[in-house]
Amino acid sequence: MTLVVKIGGGAGIDVEPIVDEVAQLIAGGEQVVLVHGGSQLTNQLSERLGHPMQVLTAPNGMTSRYTDAETLRIYAMAVAGQINTELVALLQRRGVNALGLAGVDGRLLLARRKTALRAVMPDGRVRVVRDDYSGQIEQVNAPLLRLLLEAGYTPVVAPLALGLEGERLNVDGDRVAAAIAAALGVETLAILTNVPGLLRDLADPTSVVRVIAAQELEEYLPYARGRMRKKLLGAQEALAGGVSRVCIGSGSLVALLTGAGTVITASAGLSEAGAASSSAIPALSSVEVRR
Amino acid sequence: MTLVVKIGGGAGIDVEPIVDEVAQLIAGGEQVVLVHGGSQLTNQLSERLGHPMQVLTAPNGMTSRYTDAETLRIYAMAVAGQINTELVALLQRRGVNALGLAGVDGRLLLARRKTALRAVMPDGRVRVVRDDYSGQIEQVNAPLLRLLLEAGYTPVVAPLALGLEGERLNVDGDRVAAAIAAALGVETLAILTNVPGLLRDLADPTSVVRVIAAQELEEYLPYARGRMRKKLLGAQEALAGGVSRVCIGSGSLVALLTGAGTVITASAGLSEAGAASSSAIPALSSVEVRR
Repeated sequence: MTLVVKIGGGAGIDVEPIVDEVAQLIAGGEQVVLVHGGSQLTNQLSERLGHPMQVLTAPNGMTSRYTDAETLRIYAMAVAGQINTELVALLQRRGVNALGLAGVDGRLLLARRKTALRAVMPDGRVRVVRDDYSGQIEQVNAPLLRLLLEAGYTPVVAPLALGLEGERLNVDGDRVAAAIAAALGVETLAILTNVPGLLRDLADPTSVVRVIAAQELEEYLPYARGRMRKKLLGAQEALAGGVSRVCIGSGSLVALLTGAGTVITASAGLSEAGAASSSAIPALSSVEVRR
Repeated sequence: MTLVVKIGGGAGIDVEPIVDEVAQLIAGGEQVVLVHGGSQLTNQLSERLGHPMQVLTAPNGMTSRYTDAETLRIYAMAVAGQINTELVALLQRRGVNALGLAGVDGRLLLARRKTALRAVMPDGRVRVVRDDYSGQIEQVNAPLLRLLLEAGYTPVVAPLALGLEGERLNVDGDRVAAAIAAALGVETLAILTNVPGLLRDLADPTSVVRVIAAQELEEYLPYARGRMRKKLLGAQEALAGGVSRVCIGSGSLVALLTGAGTVITASAGLSEAGAASSSAIPALSSVEVRR
């Protein structure tokens, strides 16, 4: 069984307990591909280096990090240099033979650069941004991941893709996790973030939507703001690519896999209880989790 | 044929022409493992982040970067985040399926941390430094490199090792290259730096020592200052590990492999001409190099 787990890079995500859980799943026989983000550290580093983060707002309201050449270098240092190697070391300390990859490595993630990005300026006018180094993933080197998994390594993936012209590109971590889950044909994608799931009411953390069937996803998109919107789009891509369910939430990975948070499922009439006890991760019930 | 090439991270090293040469060697059928440094970028980044580099001087006169926890993070960002991913992208742009690894990845480089480092203070007193995160390499995961080489990937290695307690450690890039060359049993290790070789007279760049037999190396150590001393120690380790020759110099890789710079050779009575036309890299004569 292979599982793709995304650990967000936002504020308020406690990484060490998640790494404990990942290590225990692997000890229990699961194969895991770990994908991570890095937004918070990138922001902090940008600030410290006197190149503070700027946001681009697309005409449809979606926002993204303005990644000029200098921001790209800062992003690469944060995600591939600090977060990736630290996660690998944390896993190694727990006996997991983790191996970090950026998307540029072995063409793991090939992406198309957005060479002309339409952005709404503060004065309301639309400008075309041509020096942005971010992209959309077009291809995943799944055989590389399988080669490493079969040899006993646990891939840890930083969302830094290779552009079609050999440039490094900033890509969204949730979309990376979704693309990898689809390319590997895994049953479950777990996205750990700093909110408990998709909320019906942003002000009420208990208003988590428990289960969404794939065909209902469009109805729920209006509830999703900011980063959550990208997670749902990632979920949509993963399900379209053959993944059975996408779990989105915060806190414990094992709790998330057993139904906490929001579960988006490919099977139409699945009840909430059914989603929670899904057979997609049979090894889980036998896993003891340190808390 | 496998070749280990180290590209220094010091000032004045023009990386792109070397990457061109590496790509052409690979196109000609060679397998290459590339190791890189990162001292200059680490220094610059430390400065910009308000944590300027400090040097530790051992009682024997050897100097090293004082790598406290913050410096380690900066070092990881520079070598594994920026330099490694940029080198991979440069190679990918030339059609080489490069794959970057830090030493923590898959336990590629296991090192022992120097937990009590004796350092001479400016006032002449010796202090024991206990918060330094640098180490000596103890083990190389050669099967991982072979797995990747056999699958068609070109490993690009950042000198960030995994400590025996799962911590990240700063390790010397020249010693990394030497350890990898020995572990893979390659014939040739090429170390590209910003000086033309070992100089008899530091003030005279034409005073390069052309050939040194392994058993004569001790006699030449007094000529070596600073970083060159570590290169010669690395060469000594590589030759002791079964490598046939170590080439140290600047500029063109192909020129270095055909006898420019200093060649340190395992075979005793080899003449300068013999070293230059060594059969260790048979594919080279057929390689055309863009200049």
